[in-house]
Amino acid sequence: MVPFAILLCAMMSKAQQPGGSNLLPVPASVRAGSGSLTIDSSFAVAVTGYTEARLDRAVERFLRQLARQTALPVSTKSVKAPNATLVIQTDHGSKEVQEVGEDESYVLEVTPAGAKLTAPTPLGTLHGLQTFLQLVDVAPEGFSVPALTIRDQPRFPWRGLMIDSVRHFIPLDVMRRNLDGMEAVKMNVFHWHLSDNQGFRVESKTFPRLHEMGSDGLYYTQDEIRALIAYARDRGIRVVPEFDLPGHSTAWFVGYPELASAPGPYEIERRWGIFDPAFDPTREQTYNFLDLFIGEMAQLFPDRFFHVGGDEVNGKHWDASTRIQEFMRSLQIENHRGLQAYFNRRLQPIVAKHGKSMIGWDEVLDPSLPKDITIHSWRGPAGLAEAVKQGYSGILSNGYYLDLGWPASRHYAVDPLDPLDRLTGAAADLTDSEKGRILGGEACMWSEYVNAENIDSRIWPRNAAIAERLWSPADVRDAASMYARLDVISARLEWLGLTHRTASRQMLQRIAGPASPDESAALLTLAALVEPVKDYTRSKTAPAIPTSQTPMNRVVDAVLPESDPARRFNELVGSFIADGCRDTTTAKQLEEQFKMWRDNEQTLRPLAARSFLVKEVEASSRDLSALGAIGLATLEFLSRRESPPDSWKSEQAANIEEIQKPKAQLLLMTAPAVQKLVEACR
Amino acid sequence: MVPFAILLCAMMSKAQQPGGSNLLPVPASVRAGSGSLTIDSSFAVAVTGYTEARLDRAVERFLRQLARQTALPVSTKSVKAPNATLVIQTDHGSKEVQEVGEDESYVLEVTPAGAKLTAPTPLGTLHGLQTFLQLVDVAPEGFSVPALTIRDQPRFPWRGLMIDSVRHFIPLDVMRRNLDGMEAVKMNVFHWHLSDNQGFRVESKTFPRLHEMGSDGLYYTQDEIRALIAYARDRGIRVVPEFDLPGHSTAWFVGYPELASAPGPYEIERRWGIFDPAFDPTREQTYNFLDLFIGEMAQLFPDRFFHVGGDEVNGKHWDASTRIQEFMRSLQIENHRGLQAYFNRRLQPIVAKHGKSMIGWDEVLDPSLPKDITIHSWRGPAGLAEAVKQGYSGILSNGYYLDLGWPASRHYAVDPLDPLDRLTGAAADLTDSEKGRILGGEACMWSEYVNAENIDSRIWPRNAAIAERLWSPADVRDAASMYARLDVISARLEWLGLTHRTASRQMLQRIAGPASPDESAALLTLAALVEPVKDYTRSKTAPAIPTSQTPMNRVVDAVLPESDPARRFNELVGSFIADGCRDTTTAKQLEEQFKMWRDNEQTLRPLAARSFLVKEVEASSRDLSALGAIGLATLEFLSRRESPPDSWKSEQAANIEEIQKPKAQLLLMTAPAVQKLVEACR
Repeated sequence: MVPFAILLCAMMSKAQQPGGSNLLPVPASVRAGSGSLTIDSSFAVAVTGYTEARLDRAVERFLRQLARQTALPVSTKSVKAPNATLVIQTDHGSKEVQEVGEDESYVLEVTPAGAKLTAPTPLGTLHGLQTFLQLVDVAPEGFSVPALTIRDQPRFPWRGLMIDSVRHFIPLDVMRRNLDGMEAVKMNVFHWHLSDNQGFRVESKTFPRLHEMGSDGLYYTQDEIRALIAYARDRGIRVVPEFDLPGHSTAWFVGYPELASAPGPYEIERRWGIFDPAFDPTREQTYNFLDLFIGEMAQLFPDRFFHVGGDEVNGKHWDASTRIQEFMRSLQIENHRGLQAYFNRRLQPIVAKHGKSMIGWDEVLDPSLPKDITIHSWRGPAGLAEAVKQGYSGILSNGYYLDLGWPASRHYAVDPLDPLDRLTGAAADLTDSEKGRILGGEACMWSEYVNAENIDSRIWPRNAAIAERLWSPADVRDAASMYARLDVISARLEWLGLTHRTASRQMLQRIAGPASPDESAALLTLAALVEPVKDYTRSKTAPAIPTSQTPMNRVVDAVLPESDPARRFNELVGSFIADGCRDTTTAKQLEEQFKMWRDNEQTLRPLAARSFLVKEVEASSRDLSALGAIGLATLEFLSRRESPPDSWKSEQAANIEEIQKPKAQLLLMTAPAVQKLVEACR
Repeated sequence: MVPFAILLCAMMSKAQQPGGSNLLPVPASVRAGSGSLTIDSSFAVAVTGYTEARLDRAVERFLRQLARQTALPVSTKSVKAPNATLVIQTDHGSKEVQEVGEDESYVLEVTPAGAKLTAPTPLGTLHGLQTFLQLVDVAPEGFSVPALTIRDQPRFPWRGLMIDSVRHFIPLDVMRRNLDGMEAVKMNVFHWHLSDNQGFRVESKTFPRLHEMGSDGLYYTQDEIRALIAYARDRGIRVVPEFDLPGHSTAWFVGYPELASAPGPYEIERRWGIFDPAFDPTREQTYNFLDLFIGEMAQLFPDRFFHVGGDEVNGKHWDASTRIQEFMRSLQIENHRGLQAYFNRRLQPIVAKHGKSMIGWDEVLDPSLPKDITIHSWRGPAGLAEAVKQGYSGILSNGYYLDLGWPASRHYAVDPLDPLDRLTGAAADLTDSEKGRILGGEACMWSEYVNAENIDSRIWPRNAAIAERLWSPADVRDAASMYARLDVISARLEWLGLTHRTASRQMLQRIAGPASPDESAALLTLAALVEPVKDYTRSKTAPAIPTSQTPMNRVVDAVLPESDPARRFNELVGSFIADGCRDTTTAKQLEEQFKMWRDNEQTLRPLAARSFLVKEVEASSRDLSALGAIGLATLEFLSRRESPPDSWKSEQAANIEEIQKPKAQLLLMTAPAVQKLVEACR
């Protein structure tokens, strides 16, 4: 991306702002002080007030991270308060099992003489330490933290990230580094999608055929899960498990076909989509099984919330079963929805019996259920409003699906507290108590098209924008500021071992094979300006039906979901047009850019001849070249102060329309801006 | 580095060569076949002949690595021979404890129908698997391996890498990935420098104050060491421990001052250099201690060789001790060298008693010692010749010191079998049996200026050039071919988790702090063209006396020891001049390059104002800018076919002479080529 960036000299980032302005999420309140606190090798922390082993570990981790960020040889040992640079005061402990709505606030005061972090509970302390780390920066005289006072607490008590570790198995080291990333942006719920058609990923000692036959050997042992929960707790993060019921359940039936609505045998599903298998809601055996199973899992996962899924039951196997149809008639159940509600009415007491509160996707919403359940809204903003109006609690994920490939700004604009805005155009008509039942939201990372190699780049940095939406005051909404800070935090997240930047480069290296520096650069130039197709079009546009066995080594797997260079280019063109296409410096920059695009294809061609993975993107490469030529021609008209003939303009519009069509599942993200430039040219 | 590379379109790499030509090290014999073997998800391995657990693990590791390289979902399970793509046949086992000179040969035959790897021992099998991995590449129709037959064996039986884990402690994960890298280039000795003035890094159960008081808590437990040795053995690598005696030994004396020649107390040394403390060779207590200690270590380290160091004893504490002086007189020992020889004559039987063969640096060479010792030559090529002429065995490290910052080509030119060439200009006059006692060589990574963060970038990829020198036939000497292949292997080494490329980028990000894309690019442009000062000048040119506590966060710590873009630029200028400065395409490329340099400083300036770590390199930035201006002026003369006035040329020569002086411990590597261009301009 560098060669492109280099030409955008005019697009100075907002990085050079006053102290504290790079914080993400933005704190509830920041008051600037004067001067700054120097950070050098003598930096030391004192822990006062309430202490516990988790806090000690947090401080050691904080110091290690500080050493990593600065490469200063900082000691990881705590000292007595008078000798400390940073004094940490925690008032009292938090709940043994972290709960929704616990006090997460903290106050951080920094002066040139020292810093003090105070918090009622360790949860606030953890957040305050992350804020401090974000404040440490290289400065003219060394590393320092600006003097300021921050009073901070979250807007929502539920700020989550869901990872689907079923469709592709996600190893624990990847989980851990993503939990580190969540901590850095103050998210506090890790929602773990653990069973689905494509796999059952948890060791069950009660029903071992679940993981033995339903996972291809790719499952987490109970010891591993306990360790991950402890790891999350250390970072102020709850772990909510999800076992999707009664649909999305093929993998259960491989080992236990008697639970299913249709006779087996069953095999682990390899494809993506909605499938017919579902639990049989009519048999007592089903509930006996789930009672034992949930009893086992309730022990394993300490969190109060237990996610039962509930989405996308197509009911085909229910329709096909005479017995189930008879059962429905006997209980006057009219349709699938009614049968699912029956299932949930049976399920909920089981979940409650084991001390848990049930949470499920939109489809579990039914007035016949007790109010102690939480609706997880994925289908649309209306569902959340409906749920809280009926007296249920709710969290929002619609608008936060990372797998749809949206730009960060689009996620950022979605607010859980205006759930109906986007549907009716009107503000949601919720009472305060209804609003109070909206607990927050969750980013969702469904894993049809991500695996251990590229998942970080699909989660980060965009997930940080969602984290800010859920933490920061509602009026923190400026996308430009968010992008400037996202760029800073994205670089910092690399220090945690996240691979959201490096993996893409390495995957492109694989795609290129042995290549000259200019060939590699040409591939990077193209790759930096394309994005994978959006929303649910990935499967439809695939060259072959995608499955869990499809190699993920293509350009579409390697490129980032949001192109920063394209965004900056589009901004540059936008400001150029707004200025009447008069600015000659920008025109010169655009010209150089267009020339590079035009000539890029020629450089890439020999590589495409050698590598089938590069060959696949030849059409996009030609498009980029054509776009460069159109841009140059447009600039030529502009420089001559000439209006191009209408025929020429409509010809270019047609060309750009073709260019905008996805090729090899890639979108060339600079095409719309060039079209605007052509239109503006008169 | 990309922005620079992009402009070097003319410098096509040698990457597009026929099958097998990217192999590093070059095999003893390659015969090309026709066609290629397709590598897809159905790839499977069968193991026939001799088997053992190590081979099973090697095959699984091989398959995982293949999956990593291709992102194909390759199964890690072995199959029966008829179904296999690759059949592995190993004849018999190798020694339980790997020995010098065991058969490491293998034959790899690849046809479009399948591949067969045969080897007398698992050592050859391991090497052959690495060769196969290097052959797998992206091709026009998918991944494939070219049809060929390789018969391969090493030229030298001792092909080592020494890592100093004392001066900076190197964690085990860093060690492991470097062992992975060694395996990839067929090195077979890991020499582990474990004690020195700055630390004692091994747990001793016999003398626990060694690690407890001599390590700051930074030591390897015996369990960790055993695990690392097993890890190395799995990769066909011996582990030779070094305990440096009788000098370089301050850390021992912190816990056991009674072993020293001067009264204590002693503290762990924080500075670099040669220090006075040394074992007291006159007391029986010393030898009793070493007997017990070496006995313990002989159990821990199974290798036959035991490295006793022996370098750089300055003898000052011996001179200062009346008792030691009397001892010398009584035994008619004339000088320090004689006393060290006495110490070694006492030491050698202890080492031998515990079943080990003693190896030591040049200084241990003394005709009074038995011939069963090996001389490790670091001081110069003469030492090795002298040793083998006296009947000792020898290995070469002079010329292979990675910490001196030499280009790969300079290491590559050093051959253990012409040990005197560089001293006298004449071929070494060694008999065949003397030559036979030259076992090989070792790259050395002394760690004054490397730590866990940047050590990979100091070892790789240059170490691969040394690995090739020690493995491949003597006539494999073409530096251009080596560089082309080094570039390919360097990218592949990243798949092993080595950070030699990524760490530098991340360190530069730390140095920049929050920066706009163009600022970051400007820093990268500068950083890609500078190298740290060479040889032993790093300490002398340091802004403050460097110690083990000095932060390693400066540009000099981040930039690579060998600049590829500078090398390519210098080649480009060289060919331009050789062609009479007539080629207009090259002239145009140079012009764009020079313009970028000239303008780079202006972009970097605001960053330098914000970051003290960037500010430090402002002088280099100005130099690059000046160099660009000189280059442009020269091209201007050339384009006008004008000869510049002599006064102008000498003025530029003076300027470039200033530019060539190190600033902030950095050398601007493109200066000499610009000077050549100025000279060539007439």
